[in-house]
Amino acid sequence: VLLEQQDGTVDLAGMRISAPDELGAEASLLGAALGLITAADGEITLSLDDELGPEAYALDVTAQGVAIVGGDAAGACWGAQTLRQLLPPATLAGEGGLVAPLVHVEDAPRFGWRGYMVDVARHFFTIEDLERQVEVAALHKVNRLHVHLTDDQGWRLEIPAWPRLTEVGGASEVDGGEGGWYTTEDWASLVAFAAARHVVVVPEIDLPGHAGAALAAYPELGASGEAVELSTSAVQSDAALSWEAEATPGFVSDVLAEVARQSPGAWLHVGADEVDEISEEDYASFVQLLRDEVVADGRTMVGWDEIGRVELEAPFLAQHWRDPDRALAAAEMGGTVIASPAEHTYLDLVYDGDADYGQVWAGAVNVEKAYAWDPTDEGLLEAEIAGVEGCLWTEYIDDVEKVDFMTWPRLAALAEVGWTAAADREWADFGERVSWDGARLEALGIGYYRSPELDWAEL
Amino acid sequence: VLLEQQDGTVDLAGMRISAPDELGAEASLLGAALGLITAADGEITLSLDDELGPEAYALDVTAQGVAIVGGDAAGACWGAQTLRQLLPPATLAGEGGLVAPLVHVEDAPRFGWRGYMVDVARHFFTIEDLERQVEVAALHKVNRLHVHLTDDQGWRLEIPAWPRLTEVGGASEVDGGEGGWYTTEDWASLVAFAAARHVVVVPEIDLPGHAGAALAAYPELGASGEAVELSTSAVQSDAALSWEAEATPGFVSDVLAEVARQSPGAWLHVGADEVDEISEEDYASFVQLLRDEVVADGRTMVGWDEIGRVELEAPFLAQHWRDPDRALAAAEMGGTVIASPAEHTYLDLVYDGDADYGQVWAGAVNVEKAYAWDPTDEGLLEAEIAGVEGCLWTEYIDDVEKVDFMTWPRLAALAEVGWTAAADREWADFGERVSWDGARLEALGIGYYRSPELDWAEL
Repeated sequence: VLLEQQDGTVDLAGMRISAPDELGAEASLLGAALGLITAADGEITLSLDDELGPEAYALDVTAQGVAIVGGDAAGACWGAQTLRQLLPPATLAGEGGLVAPLVHVEDAPRFGWRGYMVDVARHFFTIEDLERQVEVAALHKVNRLHVHLTDDQGWRLEIPAWPRLTEVGGASEVDGGEGGWYTTEDWASLVAFAAARHVVVVPEIDLPGHAGAALAAYPELGASGEAVELSTSAVQSDAALSWEAEATPGFVSDVLAEVARQSPGAWLHVGADEVDEISEEDYASFVQLLRDEVVADGRTMVGWDEIGRVELEAPFLAQHWRDPDRALAAAEMGGTVIASPAEHTYLDLVYDGDADYGQVWAGAVNVEKAYAWDPTDEGLLEAEIAGVEGCLWTEYIDDVEKVDFMTWPRLAALAEVGWTAAADREWADFGERVSWDGARLEALGIGYYRSPELDWAEL
Repeated sequence: VLLEQQDGTVDLAGMRISAPDELGAEASLLGAALGLITAADGEITLSLDDELGPEAYALDVTAQGVAIVGGDAAGACWGAQTLRQLLPPATLAGEGGLVAPLVHVEDAPRFGWRGYMVDVARHFFTIEDLERQVEVAALHKVNRLHVHLTDDQGWRLEIPAWPRLTEVGGASEVDGGEGGWYTTEDWASLVAFAAARHVVVVPEIDLPGHAGAALAAYPELGASGEAVELSTSAVQSDAALSWEAEATPGFVSDVLAEVARQSPGAWLHVGADEVDEISEEDYASFVQLLRDEVVADGRTMVGWDEIGRVELEAPFLAQHWRDPDRALAAAEMGGTVIASPAEHTYLDLVYDGDADYGQVWAGAVNVEKAYAWDPTDEGLLEAEIAGVEGCLWTEYIDDVEKVDFMTWPRLAALAEVGWTAAADREWADFGERVSWDGARLEALGIGYYRSPELDWAEL
């Protein structure tokens, strides 16, 4: 025997044992002895190929194993999610086998923004509640979690320099429940959880309207300077920050800088919607200030489509929810548009005539309505569109079951609107595929609306 | 999206996920989702290289992983066993880490036969008892399990055409215990268990002497034809098959063919030891018949060194236990010799003056005695020696604890005598290494004699 020993050691834990067919038995024996996995034939490999575009991937499942090639790490991740979707739905519950069909897939997203918004201001939801949805959303290649953090009824993110925002503003919610708020640590954990799944968290601090919680905490930000009660009503208050108030610019600067510090994503959402309480001139000044502060924080501003009314320097993103003309105006200034037209993407709207739950102000949004539309429908050019986002407002949504019910399967439809070229999308085809999604959601313990439009597959 | 599906599926269970460093997080996420192992860096590979000899191997442990190259599958298996020996002993109990030292090893056996014999006739031991020993013996690169299946006190292997062999002959043991026997299924499971570890099972049917159990079952095989009581004494009876008995040739032919049918290894051991009851001429006729039958069954005969007294056509193996002249005579006829000199290899002999257990007829066999000798000591040439075997006779060994105590660490010493060139063996060096073997045996739940010759390492 020749034995040469070098300094140092190596930890074999987690190593795979590989061997040609003729040594399969020996490899199995060693694997059993060491408690390691053996794969005599077959491997799942992830790799990168610059020639594929951002978020693009190729997936090959052969008898020899699986090869996932991503244009970038996100692409590799989406390829892996597609692999999970190809497996029996029970796999998502950690049950059943891992038998995959033999396929070759080449895939790339149409739009870079495929978002899901949750309003945690009207009703509070925990970090765990959000992570639960991120997990499922990412399986559908949703890559933005937009969190509507502040409104009249609550301020949900800790801003250490302005502690009353959460201490006072986070203490309630619609109908007077306990409310709640996220510490900076809570928020960091959500950001990291989402980032690991290539989902960017987009924090929204809604300014200068929808600001009741801020004014309840710091009345000096308002026109009157007088104390305001924290709203527990589902209806919007007339609370807005005052452009004249001395404290306002410092507050805006502090808050946005702190939110940026806590949120490494490229975007800060500043709301800027439904502000009727202040003059058009003050509104314009506000939006320009918000944009300047966001730029100073090294981020790109996102606002609701109302910002299309203001003269703004690109780059910025306008989230079109209501008025197509404002979206077109934003695009004309060089902004890009996130398509969230309420009549297709608002997840708080009722599904259909039979469903007993949901708002009706923009009509019913059944699954077909969520799917069979296009972001270019109202005149925007492809290049002017950042992507698509489904928005779950929570004035009347006060528990996780309702979040599930209103989100799924509509978010699956919206995710495909954001991912797949219009020419490749067809409602009948989608309906057949999404019916399997029910079994997947069930395996993940996620509720959904078994819309009568579809024949649902069983787990 | 381009999606092409082929017929068929692939099972991903047990596949490893590999990825370059920059996709380590994505690979981990997929691994967690699918319950699969991820190894971004490092792999244990087994492979074959014809240029290495039989049972030879090279083992490289580097920071990148482990490469085991075998000259054949057995060599790869021995390389894997060396890897196990390099790991902390607790690993063998499935505990602790898998941290290995960085080494380069090139290794090959000196002899092809490194055996362990268990006498299951005097006292019966179950298949599980034997498998337990095979597991440990294989860790020491022992590659033959010789089972002494028949003797005066018991017949332990089912021979369907001669059912009384086990029904009558298997019903007792020394001191009148319950005895027992193996069904053909039991035996097949032992053969398979051992084969998976590259241990060949060598069945021994001891003929024509040591035949009391056969005569108890079928008196017509004896000279008198009269019924014989199954012996429960530790002392050898004078029972022998009669060369004149009409039933004898058919019995011998049936039994050896059946044992060969049940035992795919290349060798049948026919005993042929200590036959003083019949004439020298009849003995020679018996041994020649046994050899002819074994050849007819496509196997090579093994007999104890008494067969050296008989004119025999090679190939055959003589197992030298007592008389060096008989071993030399066997070699002169072209036979090869398994070295089992009692004074070094008999595991039923007492360890030393302090040990309170064991036979003494050939003196004490302490660990040094089992190690510091060579199969060539009595004049055999290297090429005339098949290898080495340790023999555990069980007249006075009636439980698994005694099997452990008498076998270990002496079998470790004998295994090294069989594996390692004489020039590379040194008692002091072995003593240091075998002291760690105690910790390994302890981890495997195997007892052993903590001989005062050695400083024993603790687990």
